[in-house]
Amino acid sequence: MSKTIAIYDTTLRDGAQAEGVNFSVADKIMIAQRLDEFGVAYIEGGWPHTSRVRDSEFFQQAKKITFKNAKLAAFGSTAHPKNKPEDDPNLIGLVESGAPVITIFGKSWDFHVTDALQIELEQNLAIVESSIAFLKSQGREVFFDAEHFFDGYASNPEYALRVCQAAVQGGADGIVLCETNGGALPVNVFTATKAVVDAVDDSVVIGIHAHNDGGLGVANSLEAVRAGALHVQGVINGFGERCGNANLCTIIPNLQLKMGLNCIDSNNIKMLTEVSHYIFEIANMPFDKRMPFVGNSAFAHKGGIHVSAVMKNAGLYEHIDPALVGNRQRVLVSDQSGKSNIEYKISELGITFPEGADKNLPKEIVRQIYELENQGYEFEGAEGSMELLIQRAGGTYSPIFELNHWRCIIEKRNGKVVSEAAVKLTVNDTEEYVVAEGNGPVNALDKALRKALLQFYPEIKEMELTDYKVRVLGSSCGTGANVRVLIESRKKETLWGTVGVSENLIEASWQALVESIEYMLLKKL
Amino acid sequence: MSKTIAIYDTTLRDGAQAEGVNFSVADKIMIAQRLDEFGVAYIEGGWPHTSRVRDSEFFQQAKKITFKNAKLAAFGSTAHPKNKPEDDPNLIGLVESGAPVITIFGKSWDFHVTDALQIELEQNLAIVESSIAFLKSQGREVFFDAEHFFDGYASNPEYALRVCQAAVQGGADGIVLCETNGGALPVNVFTATKAVVDAVDDSVVIGIHAHNDGGLGVANSLEAVRAGALHVQGVINGFGERCGNANLCTIIPNLQLKMGLNCIDSNNIKMLTEVSHYIFEIANMPFDKRMPFVGNSAFAHKGGIHVSAVMKNAGLYEHIDPALVGNRQRVLVSDQSGKSNIEYKISELGITFPEGADKNLPKEIVRQIYELENQGYEFEGAEGSMELLIQRAGGTYSPIFELNHWRCIIEKRNGKVVSEAAVKLTVNDTEEYVVAEGNGPVNALDKALRKALLQFYPEIKEMELTDYKVRVLGSSCGTGANVRVLIESRKKETLWGTVGVSENLIEASWQALVESIEYMLLKKL
Repeated sequence: MSKTIAIYDTTLRDGAQAEGVNFSVADKIMIAQRLDEFGVAYIEGGWPHTSRVRDSEFFQQAKKITFKNAKLAAFGSTAHPKNKPEDDPNLIGLVESGAPVITIFGKSWDFHVTDALQIELEQNLAIVESSIAFLKSQGREVFFDAEHFFDGYASNPEYALRVCQAAVQGGADGIVLCETNGGALPVNVFTATKAVVDAVDDSVVIGIHAHNDGGLGVANSLEAVRAGALHVQGVINGFGERCGNANLCTIIPNLQLKMGLNCIDSNNIKMLTEVSHYIFEIANMPFDKRMPFVGNSAFAHKGGIHVSAVMKNAGLYEHIDPALVGNRQRVLVSDQSGKSNIEYKISELGITFPEGADKNLPKEIVRQIYELENQGYEFEGAEGSMELLIQRAGGTYSPIFELNHWRCIIEKRNGKVVSEAAVKLTVNDTEEYVVAEGNGPVNALDKALRKALLQFYPEIKEMELTDYKVRVLGSSCGTGANVRVLIESRKKETLWGTVGVSENLIEASWQALVESIEYMLLKKL
Repeated sequence: MSKTIAIYDTTLRDGAQAEGVNFSVADKIMIAQRLDEFGVAYIEGGWPHTSRVRDSEFFQQAKKITFKNAKLAAFGSTAHPKNKPEDDPNLIGLVESGAPVITIFGKSWDFHVTDALQIELEQNLAIVESSIAFLKSQGREVFFDAEHFFDGYASNPEYALRVCQAAVQGGADGIVLCETNGGALPVNVFTATKAVVDAVDDSVVIGIHAHNDGGLGVANSLEAVRAGALHVQGVINGFGERCGNANLCTIIPNLQLKMGLNCIDSNNIKMLTEVSHYIFEIANMPFDKRMPFVGNSAFAHKGGIHVSAVMKNAGLYEHIDPALVGNRQRVLVSDQSGKSNIEYKISELGITFPEGADKNLPKEIVRQIYELENQGYEFEGAEGSMELLIQRAGGTYSPIFELNHWRCIIEKRNGKVVSEAAVKLTVNDTEEYVVAEGNGPVNALDKALRKALLQFYPEIKEMELTDYKVRVLGSSCGTGANVRVLIESRKKETLWGTVGVSENLIEASWQALVESIEYMLLKKL
């Protein structure tokens, strides 16, 4: 049987240190439940401390939840040098959190002991040991997080190992080697981890907690596992302070699918893409499309050679089957791609043209795409517009409404700017004439369009715009240039893109807005 | 002296395979010049091929440029199995590109030879050797890109090495081991690279070309260097197909600052952050704030403990000095800017205050700048707006007109779009009320503004807009997000930039338009 690696998720604690990430208590509860369902071994919920109301509140609420797979962990520090462990408010807070697992960080870099903590090296060892011993006496599973371990090991390996030994003396169940500053190289992480694995009794689990400041957070985690670590800490989507924590969405499939280790139930690993998107959504951060394994672009092919090869055999240009992690293959269409991309696209979209359709239809579609690309259209991020184009060309699509006119008025008066849009259109022989305000002309137009269509297509309510991009083409003409607008929309878990081009920015936006709705309705999303 | 690693940049070729990245020929020329200035050893410009008009056009235009540091490389494939090298259109295109360096890819994975290329293994060896020999006979520096080398080595190490030997036989100057599918583990990259380094004569350079599908593109590149590779291919910002190519913005500082190797002139490495941002701008992609070394958040501290520690000693929580790569420390707490910080910012802008100015003026200005930056203003490309802000704060500037109101109407009727702008303002006690049409709302507003001001400031006639850029900030809010407009203006030889931010695109454009005129008049350009 292959080795098991315990995944210790710290999305709710270290992940929440990321710039722009702020979880409410309700967010934290939802995330914890989702992570439990996914099947991580530990969920670190926060630092229950008097000054951290949300974290303490989370642990109170979490007491009511029964987790299926995960154990809940509370995070904190070793006792303050001036306190006995049993009188230390921080350690008391940890115990009172009720979490069955407690992780405390302490210093393992001599420089930090003397410069940041400003105490003697021996005193630090005593604090580590006694803090852990106190928590063990309270019947908890205890991990010692050796802060700055790798810098410490580089500076004074003997002292760094003595700190680990002090944690063992205190009765720690595990020692987590923390690559706090995130700048270590994989080769050094391997060596130092191996030194600890060799020095410490097998009954004590060795873990790794890496950051991504050198772009090596994942590699450092994997190297630590190669050196004998059996516990890996990280964050879904790699959120975290500075460049983020080691990304569990990348670590988990590498460990499980590449290195043949067990970390997540093999039935659950296909939930990975969904879990990633869910947490982006809760954090209200835009998806990272290029993210390995789970990103929207992770299995997207653009080059003509790659596409024709992938059509023969996906393994030729894909390192894993995307379905294993719940992702899928995508083929992008651009001027770098030939007829094979379009044919793939047509078959991927499941489009069948009516009997007797022109045999040259694919060729005609390629011609239309090239012509539009010359005008500045781009279909790579606009699969919705691509499909509408194909269906229109094949005569299998008819518009959802007929436009009479639209009009935007944007006015600045007395320092205040207002935007209004009026839209007049005919839907199923019914004329709709509506007006709406927005915080900009495109927003106003979007609102008016939805208002006009809502009674016919109530599902519009559940759809939202998630991204809006403007590119001025041929920038040398100043405000007289052509403009391309790309819109990304979402309904629940589904994302799609549409495009519009015009020398008028509002008209380009209108095109993309209309197609975003048309596509949703066409596909019954 | 430490070892030198040649950096081979493929932003313009493999980077352009990224979803959402489309460089025009003019973009490519600008990027090439910037990369040359930065000091990479090689710039791969594209694949000059009949079906790739832009790439061929780029090489034609690039012939007129003298590069200071870099050699230009053209990319293509080995000859088609049916062609002799000297009759192969692809190889002829490469020679005709005029590039002094040519890189061709060929198969090194037996499965690809038999399944994708569908030829005999021996025939592939002959193709590799003869294609390279032909290019060498044309007096070029030739690199052989061994496609799928690491999968090939895992499947049939003997054959993979024989392909490399065939390239050596053909006279290749270097063999680049391509981790095409991007899913290899660092330990395997090290082993396979070492096998090639050991098997091939020292006169042939071994290179690495990694992708990021496993989140290990950087680590794999570094491991190949540890195994003896002296040539590293990658892309600025890690753009590229699927999850992207190995990120040069991460690889370069790791090699140079962590591993002590030479790759970029030590005076130039501080340009790294600027180069990264420049290429994000040209690609019209949002900055990746979390990107190691160069991201806006890369040295941003949020946690209370980290912040107070960093203020004592930055090395406590920073793996390198951010200034080494042209980045800076940020503390995500308001009013953290000390006096030295302020003076640095002001002197960086080259500003001196008039005699008798308020002593607190610098502090007040920086407060205003930070506040505006928080709203999304960016002054890097908008030195005009920066100077106006300072002059306003110093009371040395008074506005050239007073706005009563402006109004834009954009209307689509009978398939035709028209834009009209009315502007009412007071200049020197004279009221001006004008209206103008444009091909879009911003163009109409620009025309109306100029029309109103022309009789008072006839020099406006000689001024023109040369660039107009729109960026939507915080893209998660769709059309309700904040928008930043950057305008570049020119009068004769002088160029200047101005910026506007608002949730309303038209208002943001108005701000930047007004400031472009104000700045010209202030500076008597």
